Amino acid sequence: MAFTERSAATRSAILSAARKLLVERGYEAMTIRAVASLVGVDPSMVMRYYGSKAGLFNAAVDVDLRLDQLARPPRERMGELVVRHFLSRWEGEQADDALILLLRSASTTPQAAERMREVFATQIAALVARLTGAPDAEHRAALVSTQLLGVALTRYVLRLPPMVEADVDTLARDIGPVVQHYLTGGAQPLTR
Amino acid sequence: MAFTERSAATRSAILSAARKLLVERGYEAMTIRAVASLVGVDPSMVMRYYGSKAGLFNAAVDVDLRLDQLARPPRERMGELVVRHFLSRWEGEQADDALILLLRSASTTPQAAERMREVFATQIAALVARLTGAPDAEHRAALVSTQLLGVALTRYVLRLPPMVEADVDTLARDIGPVVQHYLTGGAQPLTR
Repeated sequence: MAFTERSAATRSAILSAARKLLVERGYEAMTIRAVASLVGVDPSMVMRYYGSKAGLFNAAVDVDLRLDQLARPPRERMGELVVRHFLSRWEGEQADDALILLLRSASTTPQAAERMREVFATQIAALVARLTGAPDAEHRAALVSTQLLGVALTRYVLRLPPMVEADVDTLARDIGPVVQHYLTGGAQPLTR
Repeated sequence: MAFTERSAATRSAILSAARKLLVERGYEAMTIRAVASLVGVDPSMVMRYYGSKAGLFNAAVDVDLRLDQLARPPRERMGELVVRHFLSRWEGEQADDALILLLRSASTTPQAAERMREVFATQIAALVARLTGAPDAEHRAALVSTQLLGVALTRYVLRLPPMVEADVDTLARDIGPVVQHYLTGGAQPLTR
C-alpha cells in the first residue's frame, strides 16, 4: 500500500474503533487510549489525526443525510421518496450510517442526543421547510422524524421480525403515505 | 415504617438501582454487588428478594402495557385512543415506564432488545389482532410500533424540542390518524 492508502486505512480503523466503543460502552469509555489500543496503534497517532477526544467524537458521528439528493421530488411523491432515501442511506454501501450510531448511543451518551438534535434542526427541519414551505415546518419535521427514526429503531436496533423481513418496496408502500401526510396533509383526520 | 412497608421500599430501591445501572452502563455492569452497593444494602438481601441476576433483570424490565384497558374502542377512534393510552402510560403516575427503559437499554443490552421483541409479540401484536381481526395483524402491529416507539424515542430519549413541547392533545390529533391508518387502512396510498 502507498503511504496515503495506509494512512486512510488507519484513520478508518480509528473511526470504527471509536464507534464501537461509543455504542457498546458510551462516550466516557471512548478514550483516546482505548481507541488506540483497539486499533493497535500508539495514542499519539489518534491525536495526530483527530486532535482531541472531542474531534474524534465529531468525526465518528459526522452525519450527512445527503438530503440535497431530494432537491425537487414531485409534491405527491415526497413521502415515498423520503422513505426510500433514508432506507438507501442505511442499507447502501455505507451501511454503518452515523445516524444509526447516534440512535444507538443516544441513551447513554448525552453528546450523541445533542448531536441528533442538531441533525434534526440543521438537516431534517431545513429539508421539510424547503420542500413544503409550510409555516409549521418544524413541527411537521418532528413528526416525520418520529416515523423515520421509529423505522430505524425497530429495523436495525430492536430487530422486530416483521420489520426485518419487510423489503424496501413494502416499506415505501406502507410508510410513504404517512410521511406524505406529515409533509403535506391537513390537520383533519386521515380517512381511507 | 412497618416491616412490610420497609421491605417494599427496599425492593423498590433495588429495582430503581438496577434500572439506573442498566440504562447507564448496560447489563454486564448491573451486577448484584453493584446494585446492592448503590442501595446501601448487603448483596444477600438483593438475592433474597430477586433470586438471581436474571430474576432482577426480569423484574426491572417487567412491561405491562395494560392494553386490556383498550378492550373495545370504537373502530373509528382506535388510532387516537391507542396514542392516548401510550402517552398516559409514559406520563402518568408510573412515569418510569419499563418500555422506555427497554428502549434506552436495547442498544447496549441484547437481553433488553430480546425482551422488547417479546413485548411486541405478546402484547402489541396480540392487541392489533384482537382489535382488527386483520390477517396481516403482525405486520400492521409492527407499523404501529414504528410510530409509537418513534414518538417515545424523540420525546423522552432524544428530546427533540417540537416533540417535547407538543401536548397530548396535539399528538393525539397528529399521530392518531396515522395509527388508525396502520390499524384499519387499505394498502392504497392515503390522500388528504
